[in-house]
Amino acid sequence: MAVYTRLGAEEMSAIVETFDVGTLISAKGIAEGVSNSNWLIETQHGESARRFILTVYESRTDISDLPFFLDLLDHLAARDCPVPRTMHDRDGASHRFIGEGEGRKALALIEFLPGVSVSEPTAGQARAVGAALAQIHLASADFGQARANSLDLPAWQQLLGDCGAEGLESIHPELGRLVERELGVLAREWPADLPAGVIHADLFPDNVLMLGNKVTGLIDFYFACTDLLAYDVAVTHAAWCFSTDGTQFRPDLSLALTEGYEAVRPLTPAERESLPVLARGAAVRFLATRAYDWLNTPEDALVTPKDPMAFARRLQFYADPANSGIFGA
Amino acid sequence: MAVYTRLGAEEMSAIVETFDVGTLISAKGIAEGVSNSNWLIETQHGESARRFILTVYESRTDISDLPFFLDLLDHLAARDCPVPRTMHDRDGASHRFIGEGEGRKALALIEFLPGVSVSEPTAGQARAVGAALAQIHLASADFGQARANSLDLPAWQQLLGDCGAEGLESIHPELGRLVERELGVLAREWPADLPAGVIHADLFPDNVLMLGNKVTGLIDFYFACTDLLAYDVAVTHAAWCFSTDGTQFRPDLSLALTEGYEAVRPLTPAERESLPVLARGAAVRFLATRAYDWLNTPEDALVTPKDPMAFARRLQFYADPANSGIFGA
Repeated sequence: MAVYTRLGAEEMSAIVETFDVGTLISAKGIAEGVSNSNWLIETQHGESARRFILTVYESRTDISDLPFFLDLLDHLAARDCPVPRTMHDRDGASHRFIGEGEGRKALALIEFLPGVSVSEPTAGQARAVGAALAQIHLASADFGQARANSLDLPAWQQLLGDCGAEGLESIHPELGRLVERELGVLAREWPADLPAGVIHADLFPDNVLMLGNKVTGLIDFYFACTDLLAYDVAVTHAAWCFSTDGTQFRPDLSLALTEGYEAVRPLTPAERESLPVLARGAAVRFLATRAYDWLNTPEDALVTPKDPMAFARRLQFYADPANSGIFGA
Repeated sequence: MAVYTRLGAEEMSAIVETFDVGTLISAKGIAEGVSNSNWLIETQHGESARRFILTVYESRTDISDLPFFLDLLDHLAARDCPVPRTMHDRDGASHRFIGEGEGRKALALIEFLPGVSVSEPTAGQARAVGAALAQIHLASADFGQARANSLDLPAWQQLLGDCGAEGLESIHPELGRLVERELGVLAREWPADLPAGVIHADLFPDNVLMLGNKVTGLIDFYFACTDLLAYDVAVTHAAWCFSTDGTQFRPDLSLALTEGYEAVRPLTPAERESLPVLARGAAVRFLATRAYDWLNTPEDALVTPKDPMAFARRLQFYADPANSGIFGA
């Protein structure tokens, strides 16, 4: 949520030149994204002003993954999905490098899309997000590139193991027991034979731009990977259908999200049946990274870690047999 | 350099509505300004897209000063100075409030201007900045509002006194002695009878938007006040005519800046003669706030304090009799 790299106007102008998108006329560092530096820039191209997001990838993004992320945007945009296109430089490359040696960093220039990230979604908005998610699942079927999910069940086990029972209990006295039970359930019940493909894997409201009930942009594909499509539905469900702190389930959003998804891509009976366990997995995934960050963020860090309990509450909700009917299975 | 206030899209849309500037279609928190929260927003107004900076004033800005700052922008913009206009809401007010009680904050909607802040100014750019500074000095003559300079000589004495000789020497062994000598010089030699008026008082490159050699926007008037006009020339000189760390004086920029200023508003002989001592004052002013922040910023603060020595070096340069001719007196 900051700008880590300093980039002078002169250097930025020279970078923009190489993309052939006009002359730089404005650049504002924006407080967006967790681990990269971003600027909203404007260029003058003949008579028209054009806008872009310039991203400099900081150390947390593996540069070897960039072609997957950036090519995916181009693939989806070409199939009319609401995602930003990437600009290619004069040599046809989707990303370039600045700096030298240890300080070398990759950057990309990505189309700016209008829209705002909603804080209090309506059912109409949840329905539209469900439909947009199904659209990228269908459109990526012929993408042809793959990327393993680096945050899969073994990774959750590892992260939560690193937290340790004592660490988890320092967050909440019951958390160690909850995690142990749920990791056991997931290890036994995680489905294997469901349709797989390219998933967004992090479709929180922050990563969706909307105008009214219309999705104008799905953004921040930096967790995108190859995994079960229905798991992406479960992640999006966990991200949209609760109050931020996880205390309140919103059945209207839940119904609208899955209906919106199925209007574009109906779930198979096996996928539908697996949604409860996939949702428990989705809750564990965010609980795992948040608990790890909670225990490992230095006191003087620039970023305040997010509350892991918000996802422990979702996990308890999904695990409660009384709620097994929410996915209509 | 951050966004301190959380503002949901729904709340922001409602705020924008009250300004009658169209419908909100985009909002990005921007990393600009030291102590306020800023968003670059876009609205759709009929066929045309419009852009604004939405500023929420955090606790460091005294709300009773806002009419001075915002009315000044309107006054200068109406006289064709390159400053952003403020939008007025349906009741004609230049600022509104959000929140209640302790959490009540003021906000304003300010015109977006194109341009970038240069990092390596050229003589042509320094000349244009000098001219723009003179333009606001002339245009504010009939402004009719006043605001005392809260960072004047007594304030520098206070801040540096609070640092203490020991504190200053912890920054640099010679700093206590330098400060003592210079405060003595300023107390004896500070001019009184020079032309006064409204000054920007903080015209660093960060606060100037440019396209090539053209000034498209002077921004961030939150130190603007009533003081000696030639002191503003001295501040701008200290801000533009050295390498950032203060080790390198740039005579070409110095000449261009003062020439540009005088092409619009010639200095009086008394002003010209006072420039060396005013420049020492300008260097002490930034040395004082930086030294104070250096010694009083908690280790875990979000903001890294700026190096006070960058202005101690400028101060030594200005105080050196060998450099007394740089202002052509």
